[in-house]
Amino acid sequence: MQKAIETVTAAILVIGDEILSGRIKDKNIGYIAEHLEQNAIDVKEVRIVPDEADEIIDAIRILKAKYNYLFTTGGIGPTHDDITADCVAAAFNVAIDVREDAVEMMLNKYKREDLNEARLRMARIPEGASLVNNPISFAPGFQLDNVFVMAGVPQVMHAMLEDILPKLAKGKHYLQESFDTNLKEGDLSKPLGEIAQKYSAVSFGSYPTYREGKFTTKLVMRTKNEQDFKAAKIDMLAMIERLSE
Amino acid sequence: MQKAIETVTAAILVIGDEILSGRIKDKNIGYIAEHLEQNAIDVKEVRIVPDEADEIIDAIRILKAKYNYLFTTGGIGPTHDDITADCVAAAFNVAIDVREDAVEMMLNKYKREDLNEARLRMARIPEGASLVNNPISFAPGFQLDNVFVMAGVPQVMHAMLEDILPKLAKGKHYLQESFDTNLKEGDLSKPLGEIAQKYSAVSFGSYPTYREGKFTTKLVMRTKNEQDFKAAKIDMLAMIERLSE
Repeated sequence: MQKAIETVTAAILVIGDEILSGRIKDKNIGYIAEHLEQNAIDVKEVRIVPDEADEIIDAIRILKAKYNYLFTTGGIGPTHDDITADCVAAAFNVAIDVREDAVEMMLNKYKREDLNEARLRMARIPEGASLVNNPISFAPGFQLDNVFVMAGVPQVMHAMLEDILPKLAKGKHYLQESFDTNLKEGDLSKPLGEIAQKYSAVSFGSYPTYREGKFTTKLVMRTKNEQDFKAAKIDMLAMIERLSE
Repeated sequence: MQKAIETVTAAILVIGDEILSGRIKDKNIGYIAEHLEQNAIDVKEVRIVPDEADEIIDAIRILKAKYNYLFTTGGIGPTHDDITADCVAAAFNVAIDVREDAVEMMLNKYKREDLNEARLRMARIPEGASLVNNPISFAPGFQLDNVFVMAGVPQVMHAMLEDILPKLAKGKHYLQESFDTNLKEGDLSKPLGEIAQKYSAVSFGSYPTYREGKFTTKLVMRTKNEQDFKAAKIDMLAMIERLSE
């Protein structure tokens, strides 16, 4: 059983020139964020960096030290620009080489004679890492300490995350409530600010949407404190009713 | 006329708890990246941070020093959690207050008597900044030195970016070519790596897509060197033809 802890934090590191150039639109950040949220893990930071070793290694070192978990996507394929595994090894100062357990996993898909030099790159795993399963394309992700290395192809990443989630420590779930209002943000922000000041353990968000020439506002409150949650919810409903008159 | 320079770099900083929790899926990063790419500005890094002053200020300081431009989205509305303008002022060590030119812009939409304390928060602009136009909701963005501060609501951000783009220095455009192939990444990665080694001024990307149980691979080459571009393209086409036989 995992130790009960209030807050478990995480960062996401997306690796790839194609995201930074806008040629491919990232679909992984929102997916990972949503699934970690459901598992009571708080994503506190996201970075997207290019396929450049120095940038990747720096980001890994900083983010793995600052948060409980780091999840990376991208850069673990067979081509010359797939350097994530090497960068993780460098960030941890450990060796990296083709590993037999990774080759075994790939033999679920490939014949041994088809495992050319390029494909064997995908079996290069840093020393001490454990494999993350890949039932889609059978080239493994891996976990080294608190860093989880996943593919960038969304369907493969989804399968890897499914393998990873049960292994993670979970924090306490947020209690969350959202309110769809027809109010204008500028009309509710002062009373909302007063409620926010009253309940310092609750975070309140206000999200305007622009549609057909009109702004509406969604309000969201989140906290891990049950008592404050109930009291703040009463205040929020009263405020919305009062302003909607 | 802008000075002719080879490379202009940029970072994007997305500010907002709602993106990190996965409740709202970011649509701004890809949009900004694509438009900067079209304007020959290279996005080299993206960060997403929560609505926490220390994190925002740190990220602004680091990114504005490291790249030619920094573009932020989010946190410039009227509510208590909209702290981006204050964080930019803090990152530059300048004062911030309600500014009459920002109020003037808002008077395009609001009557003066409707500009309550909350709405006037949106007219708080750091000293020395120039305003960015907002023809959608009339609360300005702003530019301070090399930092451009934009709204998080996509339609408003789009309008602000349109106002900003003509003001930016541009680098030299990348020459880019992409090749859709039915090849497997593992089969082409060795010859692709050889071409990549031959043309060090060209960057080559290889992007597998998984659809209906099958992987296909898109190859992309980018460079600012015209001669290498032509020669590498010939080699790429020859490689693809040879492997497709």
